[in-house]
Amino acid sequence: MQLGMIGLGRMGSDMTRRLMNHGHECVVHDVHPQAVEALQAQGAVGGQSLADLVSRLGKPRAIWLMLPAAVVDDELARLMPLLEPGDIVIDGGNSYYRDDIRRGRMLASSGVHYVDVGTSGGVFGLERGYCLMIGGEKDVIRHLRPIFTALAPGAAAAPATPSRRQDQGTAEQGYLHCGPHGAGHFVKMVHNGIEYGLMAAYAEGLNILRNADIGTRSGDTDAETTPLRHPEYYQYHFELPEIAEVWRRGSVIGSWLLDLTADALQGDPTLEKFQGRVSDSGEGRWTIMAAIEEAVPAPVLSAALYERFSSRGDAEFANKILSAMRSEFGGHAEKPAAKPGA
Amino acid sequence: MQLGMIGLGRMGSDMTRRLMNHGHECVVHDVHPQAVEALQAQGAVGGQSLADLVSRLGKPRAIWLMLPAAVVDDELARLMPLLEPGDIVIDGGNSYYRDDIRRGRMLASSGVHYVDVGTSGGVFGLERGYCLMIGGEKDVIRHLRPIFTALAPGAAAAPATPSRRQDQGTAEQGYLHCGPHGAGHFVKMVHNGIEYGLMAAYAEGLNILRNADIGTRSGDTDAETTPLRHPEYYQYHFELPEIAEVWRRGSVIGSWLLDLTADALQGDPTLEKFQGRVSDSGEGRWTIMAAIEEAVPAPVLSAALYERFSSRGDAEFANKILSAMRSEFGGHAEKPAAKPGA
Amino acid sequence: MQLGMIGLGRMGSDMTRRLMNHGHECVVHDVHPQAVEALQAQGAVGGQSLADLVSRLGKPRAIWLMLPAAVVDDELARLMPLLEPGDIVIDGGNSYYRDDIRRGRMLASSGVHYVDVGTSGGVFGLERGYCLMIGGEKDVIRHLRPIFTALAPGAAAAPATPSRRQDQGTAEQGYLHCGPHGAGHFVKMVHNGIEYGLMAAYAEGLNILRNADIGTRSGDTDAETTPLRHPEYYQYHFELPEIAEVWRRGSVIGSWLLDLTADALQGDPTLEKFQGRVSDSGEGRWTIMAAIEEAVPAPVLSAALYERFSSRGDAEFANKILSAMRSEFGGHAEKPAAKPGA
Amino acid sequence: MQLGMIGLGRMGSDMTRRLMNHGHECVVHDVHPQAVEALQAQGAVGGQSLADLVSRLGKPRAIWLMLPAAVVDDELARLMPLLEPGDIVIDGGNSYYRDDIRRGRMLASSGVHYVDVGTSGGVFGLERGYCLMIGGEKDVIRHLRPIFTALAPGAAAAPATPSRRQDQGTAEQGYLHCGPHGAGHFVKMVHNGIEYGLMAAYAEGLNILRNADIGTRSGDTDAETTPLRHPEYYQYHFELPEIAEVWRRGSVIGSWLLDLTADALQGDPTLEKFQGRVSDSGEGRWTIMAAIEEAVPAPVLSAALYERFSSRGDAEFANKILSAMRSEFGGHAEKPAAKPGA
Repeated sequence: MQLGMIGLGRMGSDMTRRLMNHGHECVVHDVHPQAVEALQAQGAVGGQSLADLVSRLGKPRAIWLMLPAAVVDDELARLMPLLEPGDIVIDGGNSYYRDDIRRGRMLASSGVHYVDVGTSGGVFGLERGYCLMIGGEKDVIRHLRPIFTALAPGAAAAPATPSRRQDQGTAEQGYLHCGPHGAGHFVKMVHNGIEYGLMAAYAEGLNILRNADIGTRSGDTDAETTPLRHPEYYQYHFELPEIAEVWRRGSVIGSWLLDLTADALQGDPTLEKFQGRVSDSGEGRWTIMAAIEEAVPAPVLSAALYERFSSRGDAEFANKILSAMRSEFGGHAEKPAAKPGA
Repeated sequence: MQLGMIGLGRMGSDMTRRLMNHGHECVVHDVHPQAVEALQAQGAVGGQSLADLVSRLGKPRAIWLMLPAAVVDDELARLMPLLEPGDIVIDGGNSYYRDDIRRGRMLASSGVHYVDVGTSGGVFGLERGYCLMIGGEKDVIRHLRPIFTALAPGAAAAPATPSRRQDQGTAEQGYLHCGPHGAGHFVKMVHNGIEYGLMAAYAEGLNILRNADIGTRSGDTDAETTPLRHPEYYQYHFELPEIAEVWRRGSVIGSWLLDLTADALQGDPTLEKFQGRVSDSGEGRWTIMAAIEEAVPAPVLSAALYERFSSRGDAEFANKILSAMRSEFGGHAEKPAAKPGA
Repeated sequence: MQLGMIGLGRMGSDMTRRLMNHGHECVVHDVHPQAVEALQAQGAVGGQSLADLVSRLGKPRAIWLMLPAAVVDDELARLMPLLEPGDIVIDGGNSYYRDDIRRGRMLASSGVHYVDVGTSGGVFGLERGYCLMIGGEKDVIRHLRPIFTALAPGAAAAPATPSRRQDQGTAEQGYLHCGPHGAGHFVKMVHNGIEYGLMAAYAEGLNILRNADIGTRSGDTDAETTPLRHPEYYQYHFELPEIAEVWRRGSVIGSWLLDLTADALQGDPTLEKFQGRVSDSGEGRWTIMAAIEEAVPAPVLSAALYERFSSRGDAEFANKILSAMRSEFGGHAEKPAAKPGA
Repeated sequence: MQLGMIGLGRMGSDMTRRLMNHGHECVVHDVHPQAVEALQAQGAVGGQSLADLVSRLGKPRAIWLMLPAAVVDDELARLMPLLEPGDIVIDGGNSYYRDDIRRGRMLASSGVHYVDVGTSGGVFGLERGYCLMIGGEKDVIRHLRPIFTALAPGAAAAPATPSRRQDQGTAEQGYLHCGPHGAGHFVKMVHNGIEYGLMAAYAEGLNILRNADIGTRSGDTDAETTPLRHPEYYQYHFELPEIAEVWRRGSVIGSWLLDLTADALQGDPTLEKFQGRVSDSGEGRWTIMAAIEEAVPAPVLSAALYERFSSRGDAEFANKILSAMRSEFGGHAEKPAAKPGA
């Protein structure tokens, strides 16, 4: 079928390509003309402007926005006057689900349908397909099935779940209608919260392995540092790339994130090219806020988020307070920095 | 080659079967004669006693212990007088790596080689193979390669890591010599620590999804309970089995644990048959202790462990103290229990 | 000076009494006539209705609301038509600071001043005085100084901070103008967040002391339970009431909360009369949300909040998922409940 | 009575002075002769060597060691040949309680009594007195009461606990016999674990207050950073020194640590002179290990400890792994450092 795609960054472009590979017709637009041209060269129809894109789509139109969350409302404001009742707008970016609820209501007042799609897959999606978590009206989503089917990985991407009937829904294709407006981004939000937790679990574990040689280092001997009681138990020099590799087969902790970790450690086992300042996107934060509003404990997901904050120096003032307290009650001076690995 | 297997619980029996399937000869012993008989019926040689097992093995003997960690030392004490210099004892159970270091030294004084193998794979190992993390002497481990190759899943069990040379070691087969005595169980210990973290990340996330309907419940209105400010944002009734299923394809959080979770939620989406009292084995605890001795922060892995403690009621006294303090300073009485889902 | 007090629960009544003890004239109102009568008997002027209360106050009127946060907006809606430009409304309850910002703007449009006061002190405030954290316009707050001075504990309540000039502001009296609308409740919010952290620190520590006898208990010996490696190190039967008492003098961890804990443990060292279901009010939750929006790590305050959630059973489904996973990959059955203290 | 004091660092010297102020006779020794001389000038008897110190003490001798934990065993080895049955050695430093158990047994074999004393009070102890947590034999500890009474703050240092009978034990004096060997240091260990939690609670809360102006800063606008949804709610510039001060009177979170924090923030509200690299001593670590061995959840105390580890850069490799994963799956590059406060 035909789809308008607005926003041709890496995600939007790759999704357009995957759709065209599956035989769909894509009309594309982006503020950067060269992004439009690049996809035109691969078979897309170029929309020189929003109005141009809209005019090239048959009715009812289906238009997918793949934009930074911060600009979606502005783009919708420009787009809405061009649309007609029955048209469909899909937000496939990283919007907060509460914005979806508001937008769904707003567009409905003009007779336009709104669909929110949480999209996971990253740079591998073009080839592997995208996992799609979808919110909106049932009929509208059924209408868009050809699009979802093309974007999703398909059932063959993973072995069947033994106890599941294979004809019971689309989840095994890699896309799912999760509920009304916002449901797609809510599920994607929690997905990302989980992602942070998984990543942190591997990162902490590998850090423990990396420091298993601490007994071989000449220790500090001043009063401010606890001596290691049993250096003989920390004499291991582990090859992390090979350990990540061995865990990929047969172990309980095998995962796609582990596959990526094993790859990243190859050739750069100490990850020298990274500084360890870890960004976080909104979803991880919103997941914790949802947990708190629901009164659901989420210590693991929260700890994972806070590690990212701390990695960027955001605990510094708190730490200064700790040092100030220690100085007050114990006369403890701070120790100068000396990296463990130095 | 020939291997003696002592301890024919589920793990020991399945490993014996897998070894025999790969053409190895197994001499087996267990305190329960029927376990021996069951494997004899499938081609194993039965050892009626430790001495009998030892006598049936060619020299140098290789004997694999697959026993609860708590009984390994006793079994070694019985076994050692029967062995000769050059023999090999392998501990494939869940021993603490510090015990391996001690045992390695102890057996070496009799000329016997000790090998520690952390084994992951659970009930699926017979079919999928076992991930083996190995500590000990290089020559001894090379000698045992046919055994490890048979038990491990083999390279085909996962796609090759793109940036890794495929001939650079055994990790891609699913087994790895990690270092000297204790290294195998150290790596397995951290593996389990990570496992706890991964499991908790999924569990917390699914719990947040499950409670996304909190705005539909008639809320408490007393002074002790914070009213939900925006019930309109918590109106979702998510089908968790389908969400776990859709995440299995194309998403960043795909993993074997997710596969299992999707399977578990099928047919029992509220997991009624479980109480939620979660056991923990030593490895998770030892991982945190290692982190602390290394001064490596492990907030995610620790939180995961503590959730298990709390699930068994071990926070109860701490919670009573909180209630007592609140009663003291604010005159707050405890609220009676009323399950959110009730 | 003269003050109207609306809301004569424990806090409102005690604050009225303290104000009258300091020579102020209080006009009081509550939906429960007997609460009004009780204070009339102690010298307050009774307002039979909102209108009656308003009519008995000289202009500009100052009216303090001491109500559950959930009903403040309704009460304001009833009150506003009765007020005139220049009047002052003070919210001394537990409002969310964002509501203060909104209300401050709303009342300003009618020329009425709004002041938010975070009030700490609990059941001891009548005697000890209340710690007041205040947000609003500078002139208005200066006008209310006699009220704040009467309610606050006064400088003598604590030794002077050595490095602080004693004439530099009101903080040493126990009240502080923290900033514009909402600033008072923001500071009170974080105050409560800290309170949760402090309480949890004591509670966890005392729980560790209480279980220092774990080596004396006959342990579980099944495969699902890690045996205690060194029971000889856990043979202590600590008298918690006396330990809390000894910490009150000379130690680094002395505090008012510790004083209360010592008192609570007297006569009920196992706190049998509590179940350990710990409520939480909005401030603790909002503190974490503020931390997340600010990207400030708050692992301790979050953990304290989550312990309260868990104490009320809100982790149950997450725990069931953990048990379900363990059942899937390891065939582990749950262990039946058996309380450690049983 | 007479006491030998070995180790005249700040703690040992101050304790000696306090004992002499209370009329006790102190024989002192230190490896630094000038430390001995300084105390001789204030009335102590100087011991030029261990043997000299021992010879100047009447029998049964009581000798207090106030030494770094790491050197206690060596000092005991030198001291023991000089002692006789009935003599008493007191370790008042920061020993691990397991060492106390071992030493208690070892000294007993020579008829010498061992007493472990956890000592809290820091640089203020000389004036305020020391909180003493004591382990050992009942008779021996009763014999030492005059020493403990002199060192402890005394009952007047805090108001009486309302529900406690004032004649029921020594805890209200500020010292307590907690149990057999090791009990004193066990209680002190947990005391320090709690201390870390309390300190972190204040530090996190003050950090949240400090960043309440985040809405006034010109934000990052790139795709890697979540925009603040509501900058209007984060417009507060809080004066932290005054907030700490106001909390000291009448609030629930008043404490000695808060008193010190208020003092530290005076004159240096941004704590510029500190870097925020926070040391930790053994007790905090051992507390967590005890919690884990007891299966007692301690998320708050653990988080406090991990914040200290992270403040010293020990999470760096874990963070690099997170960045590496993000780079792998999303092509995310790290953002360069730009301090929030810059």
